[in-house]
Amino acid sequence: MSIIVQKYGGSSVADVEKLKKISEMIAAVQNTGNNVVAVVSAMGKTTNSLIEMAKEISNNPSRRELDMLLSTGERTTMALLCIALNELGVEAISLTGSQAGIITNDHHNDARVIEVRPIRVQDELDKGKVVVIGGFQGVSYKRDITTLGRGGSDTSAVALAAALNAKRCEIYSDVDGVYTTDPNILKEANHLPEISYQQIQEMAEAGAKVLNAQAVQFAKEAKIALYARSTFNSGKETIIKNISKKELAGVLAVVYEKEIIRVYVHDADKIGWVLNFLEENQIAIKEFQQTGLAGDKGYKCSFIVSATNVYDWTKVKESLENKLRDGIYINESLGTVSIIGEGFSRNNKVLKEIFNLLKKSNIDFYGINTTSFRISILVERDLVEVAVKVCHDYWIG
Amino acid sequence: MSIIVQKYGGSSVADVEKLKKISEMIAAVQNTGNNVVAVVSAMGKTTNSLIEMAKEISNNPSRRELDMLLSTGERTTMALLCIALNELGVEAISLTGSQAGIITNDHHNDARVIEVRPIRVQDELDKGKVVVIGGFQGVSYKRDITTLGRGGSDTSAVALAAALNAKRCEIYSDVDGVYTTDPNILKEANHLPEISYQQIQEMAEAGAKVLNAQAVQFAKEAKIALYARSTFNSGKETIIKNISKKELAGVLAVVYEKEIIRVYVHDADKIGWVLNFLEENQIAIKEFQQTGLAGDKGYKCSFIVSATNVYDWTKVKESLENKLRDGIYINESLGTVSIIGEGFSRNNKVLKEIFNLLKKSNIDFYGINTTSFRISILVERDLVEVAVKVCHDYWIG
Repeated sequence: MSIIVQKYGGSSVADVEKLKKISEMIAAVQNTGNNVVAVVSAMGKTTNSLIEMAKEISNNPSRRELDMLLSTGERTTMALLCIALNELGVEAISLTGSQAGIITNDHHNDARVIEVRPIRVQDELDKGKVVVIGGFQGVSYKRDITTLGRGGSDTSAVALAAALNAKRCEIYSDVDGVYTTDPNILKEANHLPEISYQQIQEMAEAGAKVLNAQAVQFAKEAKIALYARSTFNSGKETIIKNISKKELAGVLAVVYEKEIIRVYVHDADKIGWVLNFLEENQIAIKEFQQTGLAGDKGYKCSFIVSATNVYDWTKVKESLENKLRDGIYINESLGTVSIIGEGFSRNNKVLKEIFNLLKKSNIDFYGINTTSFRISILVERDLVEVAVKVCHDYWIG
Repeated sequence: MSIIVQKYGGSSVADVEKLKKISEMIAAVQNTGNNVVAVVSAMGKTTNSLIEMAKEISNNPSRRELDMLLSTGERTTMALLCIALNELGVEAISLTGSQAGIITNDHHNDARVIEVRPIRVQDELDKGKVVVIGGFQGVSYKRDITTLGRGGSDTSAVALAAALNAKRCEIYSDVDGVYTTDPNILKEANHLPEISYQQIQEMAEAGAKVLNAQAVQFAKEAKIALYARSTFNSGKETIIKNISKKELAGVLAVVYEKEIIRVYVHDADKIGWVLNFLEENQIAIKEFQQTGLAGDKGYKCSFIVSATNVYDWTKVKESLENKLRDGIYINESLGTVSIIGEGFSRNNKVLKEIFNLLKKSNIDFYGINTTSFRISILVERDLVEVAVKVCHDYWIG
């Protein structure tokens, strides 16, 4: 029998009625002769309310304890979903991330999956059971409960699909796939019936709230097709898979990220300290530039980070300012707009067009970063939506 | 350093403000040079609302999945309490029942602790940390999460205290110890400053909502004194410990249980089947009587069970009635009143007094069961409170 891994996000499991509906969907898939592994998120806004409680107690809660706290959300969902499946006469068993063999490093709140040993999952599937697994969570080699960061349930699902050699991995949420831009800010956004692994990774890394980037990485390596679907509106879907080069060309999508911070460091002697500090605090640098010569009056380096990926930015900022005093300047009001496509580094056509387009539209920009698959423009946060609209109109329309 | 184990019940950890207060209490105890292990229950009515959700989905939820579901309650509390302790500058770490080494059998919803291996608890204490442990939960040898039944957090606390060779075990709740009867139905109830292990076990088994009976058993075996205290009203307490025989005499307390069911079986050939059925469904018989000869017209055996300890009584009743048809009679409107004391089997004085007392008060009874430490009277549920009052007035006043 083939294994199908399905992932259900928070809005798909928001209440008991939705859990019942999902249990019927799972039963139907199992009846077609497939083994089903369902990976679930916490119900609705559960994760947020748990974080709220922690924040009522402390501005800086321990990351290990936060993981212990948050992991209860998915456990509630998975037990209830099994009870719903049982009620339909379907044998089902819930497994925690730990029981499912999701082994991670010990970077609490944003752990990386380092190994998946789904021995028990396979055992239970062999007994004909539906296996329901708590997403977003794993266990570190120190035997502590970890969580996988934003979109972590996607990672759980794809990592399991890869380890179980699943036929496919279906990602259910409240949207029916991937669009050329965020339909919430531009209703002209077009649905994409398919997209390559590389492109969706670029979109995710450029801030689009699509699939988790590590999840796509796992799918790409294991060559597992991902089906992004809406839970309660069947019809459209986006298939994420290998797409051969010649089909890919030009601009595919326009995505954005609003919480961008740029840090300028003036004192060249402090750059080493800054890099160490960022490493210690597990802060990923999105772009780093070093400019000028030692002794210049201007800044010596600048880097940008995504505020949503920094755990407690306020505290990080305080530490940086305490160390560098007036040798630092921080701009917290930025955002990026990114053009996603293919072949951008092979010719400058799109880059030149962007220059002209932004100039004509009176949108100032602070920098442009180009890879073969993406051109990102740094603009004032207030201008992000206008820039998205201008770019989408021009290339996709 | 000495180890003090403290257990905080649901009302003691009902909200974030109470968690903060408890973290201050724990910090104060640690500052006196003791190692603290805090065992916590789920916050307030959390367990009930989780059960509610499960019942919305199924009348008969899987016991394994219920355990998975319910165990999240204590995990939420323990993570938040650690965050509160950290906020006070106290190093703390939360451990699940499984991480704390609470090994149980696989009787889900009412598992027995079969072994405690608190290796990690000891490790973390040695590092100077406060260890906060989720009560009510363990892990079976099949590596499934189990829960320990009503009052299970008491069992967790005492079992850990025993395994850690703790100096003492403090049980915090919303009452300041043990009374001569339930103060909710009789305001004349007297506080008991101390009580023996045996007596409190008899009280628990006779339905008093005091400590869990298995918990007291562990304490007795390990000779650990238990301190039953009110969390937010310091002052009175009840110490549960070994009390030498000569100090014990007469009637100590009057307790009751309202959810008693008596089952009469008429067909002697079915008694074996009934006993097997009860065993399979893990239903403990409180009293069993076999009467009459095979061929008699009357009932051949009767037994009583406590409805609160039967998982899904409605279903059990249905199975019994389907099998025995008109060979069974079930009385669901009973209760017991129990006199707790010492030496009852050595002379009949108290027994005779009970007969006279109930007769004078026009309280009919269906049976009397006597042990050395307890005399239990089976009466109509409606008469339980009156009988408690009559007995308490007569012996304790």
